[in-house]
Amino acid sequence: MTEQSMPTLHGIMAARPNVYQYLKPTPLYHYSGLSQLIGTDVWVKHENHQPVGAFKVRGGLNFAANLSNEEQKAGLFTASTGNHGQSIAFGAKVNGVKATIAVPEGANPSKVAAMRGLGAEVIFHGSDFDSAREWSMSEAEARHGRFVGPTEDLLICGVGTYGLEIMEDLPDVDTIIAPVGAGSGACGTSIAAKSINPKVEVIGVQSAQAPAMQLSWKSGDLMTADMNTFAEGIATRVPFANTQRIMRKYLDDFALVDDDAIKRAIVLLLEHTRNLAEGAGAASLAAAIQLKERLAGKKVVLVLSGGNLSMEKLRDILGP
Amino acid sequence: MTEQSMPTLHGIMAARPNVYQYLKPTPLYHYSGLSQLIGTDVWVKHENHQPVGAFKVRGGLNFAANLSNEEQKAGLFTASTGNHGQSIAFGAKVNGVKATIAVPEGANPSKVAAMRGLGAEVIFHGSDFDSAREWSMSEAEARHGRFVGPTEDLLICGVGTYGLEIMEDLPDVDTIIAPVGAGSGACGTSIAAKSINPKVEVIGVQSAQAPAMQLSWKSGDLMTADMNTFAEGIATRVPFANTQRIMRKYLDDFALVDDDAIKRAIVLLLEHTRNLAEGAGAASLAAAIQLKERLAGKKVVLVLSGGNLSMEKLRDILGP
Repeated sequence: MTEQSMPTLHGIMAARPNVYQYLKPTPLYHYSGLSQLIGTDVWVKHENHQPVGAFKVRGGLNFAANLSNEEQKAGLFTASTGNHGQSIAFGAKVNGVKATIAVPEGANPSKVAAMRGLGAEVIFHGSDFDSAREWSMSEAEARHGRFVGPTEDLLICGVGTYGLEIMEDLPDVDTIIAPVGAGSGACGTSIAAKSINPKVEVIGVQSAQAPAMQLSWKSGDLMTADMNTFAEGIATRVPFANTQRIMRKYLDDFALVDDDAIKRAIVLLLEHTRNLAEGAGAASLAAAIQLKERLAGKKVVLVLSGGNLSMEKLRDILGP
Repeated sequence: MTEQSMPTLHGIMAARPNVYQYLKPTPLYHYSGLSQLIGTDVWVKHENHQPVGAFKVRGGLNFAANLSNEEQKAGLFTASTGNHGQSIAFGAKVNGVKATIAVPEGANPSKVAAMRGLGAEVIFHGSDFDSAREWSMSEAEARHGRFVGPTEDLLICGVGTYGLEIMEDLPDVDTIIAPVGAGSGACGTSIAAKSINPKVEVIGVQSAQAPAMQLSWKSGDLMTADMNTFAEGIATRVPFANTQRIMRKYLDDFALVDDDAIKRAIVLLLEHTRNLAEGAGAASLAAAIQLKERLAGKKVVLVLSGGNLSMEKLRDILGP
């Protein structure tokens, strides 16, 4: 793609068959308890119900379905210890493609096991994430495979299918709040929503303890920032140019919420929806609580992007 | 109904429009983590996704839709502090009928608030559940309304719609495991499943700390038993004749699991499905773990009947 092109509603529509061959649309549920809490009608988009527990699997499916014959043979290469890695592993597996995923030495064994459980080859390389990624990129090039970065247009179109589902299930939605890590979810959602109804407001949210994407969006420049959040899914230290470019066009606002507010939101979601959210997944509720006054009278959708929270963290958050 | 008649697949089919006017079918998800744990393919039927957090709301909807004009005016009467009360309140509300729900003095304030939030009139009466129920029955008679016990045929047909959904979504299911409190869920499920495929095995489960329904089913006599389980939804002290009669015809087996095993299953469901289960809802997984050997090679559905677990209990169960 040239620098000027951007993912479109058409690209999201084209991703649907690739996604729905293996997944069902996720539910959008209205919760009276959360509605009372925010003081307006609140729905939750349940991306935590995906087979790997997070929205990203939609992107992996679309990416793996769009490979050339040569790429199919050589397979997919990426570097990830989180939901992105599982997404690529899942997409590769069901499309009969090999996935090779690089992780730094000492990566979380349970996440490595999850990716291996999905059939991926996991390679430990280097002491940090950057060296694992560089190795993965050079391997992909040497073997004529495809390296998958976290903000590829095909990923954005894949994950945008959940935004389209929101518009189908609740055509008169006023506001959608989505967490931002690399930004593919917020981009896909806002492209889908705004292309259908430009009046829909889409608000991104990140932790105040990892604000690189928010600072970059606010300033218009790519700005790195400290990264101290517990919420892995929205822990970005270096901003991504491709998604910044799209969010500048499509996003209406971008909130920051404290990690403590995210932790409270995890407990509120458990109580009111009986669903476990990871930090990124609960950030949208934390933002809605913070923005309560300006949401009055609106139909609000909170994107519960994923539910991969460890029992150790849940114990910490629930407290003694 | 005469003593010989029993709810049928036809009655469940007739309940569907009453249920689907207000609810969507709940998802049936396959989980690879649980499948590895049990050593066979395992699906979960997510009745915890219902708007009141439990399967019973299906029964309330069917019951309220089947009232005579006179009963509609006088309203529904019941006694409950749990999911049954919320089910009747929900069914009454959406059908424009008044619900009067008796609870003993000192009933759990959050559950009373939930029923009132659904528009029910909650009356405190007497020091225990029996006196609240007797008061409710006499009020219903005096006011020409309808008293709703926990095992009415219309409730069984209503909740049986989830059994039918299982058969639609997974026609080649081999075994369904469902928790038994009053027994409406296990009855509705087994009627639906067996009427379509008599080879489907349906297994009920109760806590070993409240085995009245299991002991009665095993012996063929109605037997009371101690009731010391933390799992409210399956805490039955006095067995119910109507559901015993149906379960004797339709149920293949009836397991007992210890409360400790149920608590472990709550944690496993959180880890592997990212869903909060109440004790009753996790009992089916506890039973599957116990029956692991005989489930080998079978397609197994676990009914996650409800998710109304308090944060206090969850804290206790997760431990320090």
